[in-house]
Amino acid sequence: MIVLRKVMGDQLRKQRQTQKRSLRDISKNAKVSLGYLSEVERGQKEASSELLGAICGALNISLSKFMFEVTKAVAEIEQNPQGVTVLPISKKSDSAAA
Amino acid sequence: MIVLRKVMGDQLRKQRQTQKRSLRDISKNAKVSLGYLSEVERGQKEASSELLGAICGALNISLSKFMFEVTKAVAEIEQNPQGVTVLPISKKSDSAAA
Repeated sequence: MIVLRKVMGDQLRKQRQTQKRSLRDISKNAKVSLGYLSEVERGQKEASSELLGAICGALNISLSKFMFEVTKAVAEIEQNPQGVTVLPISKKSDSAAA
Repeated sequence: MIVLRKVMGDQLRKQRQTQKRSLRDISKNAKVSLGYLSEVERGQKEASSELLGAICGALNISLSKFMFEVTKAVAEIEQNPQGVTVLPISKKSDSAAA
């Protein structure tokens, strides 16, 4: 079963890192303890709706934009539950010929 | 601020009612108490990720499909925060002429 808080945590971290911002910065802006925010990002704690709103506010992204990213990530996991990237198989003879 | 659990609760109820199923049916299938499910639908309790997964399972909808509906609803609220439907104004003279 897909655990939504893990997908949400990954997306929150991704948004934060894309903006090159620290946990400290976001935690201060969202008025949430650094430890708690870190646990939310790691999918270890469920963020309440109010907290999620505050974190999105600190990241300057709308809740719908965030939810859209989460939905995309959930759909990708459903398509590929093992998270295995399937690479094209190259024949040995091809490598030898190169 | 948009409270995600309220939007999620509304969407869960909408999905259940569209399927013409009872709270009792879903609560039994998802192995959650009827009272708790009812509180989740009314946006009074945050559903854990595991519970949300179980409810979606009981409703036979994928988590991504559910999240897509939630995202759409959040975006609609962001567009129209007061929930006011703006109707076109018809002039009195138009009505009188009809």
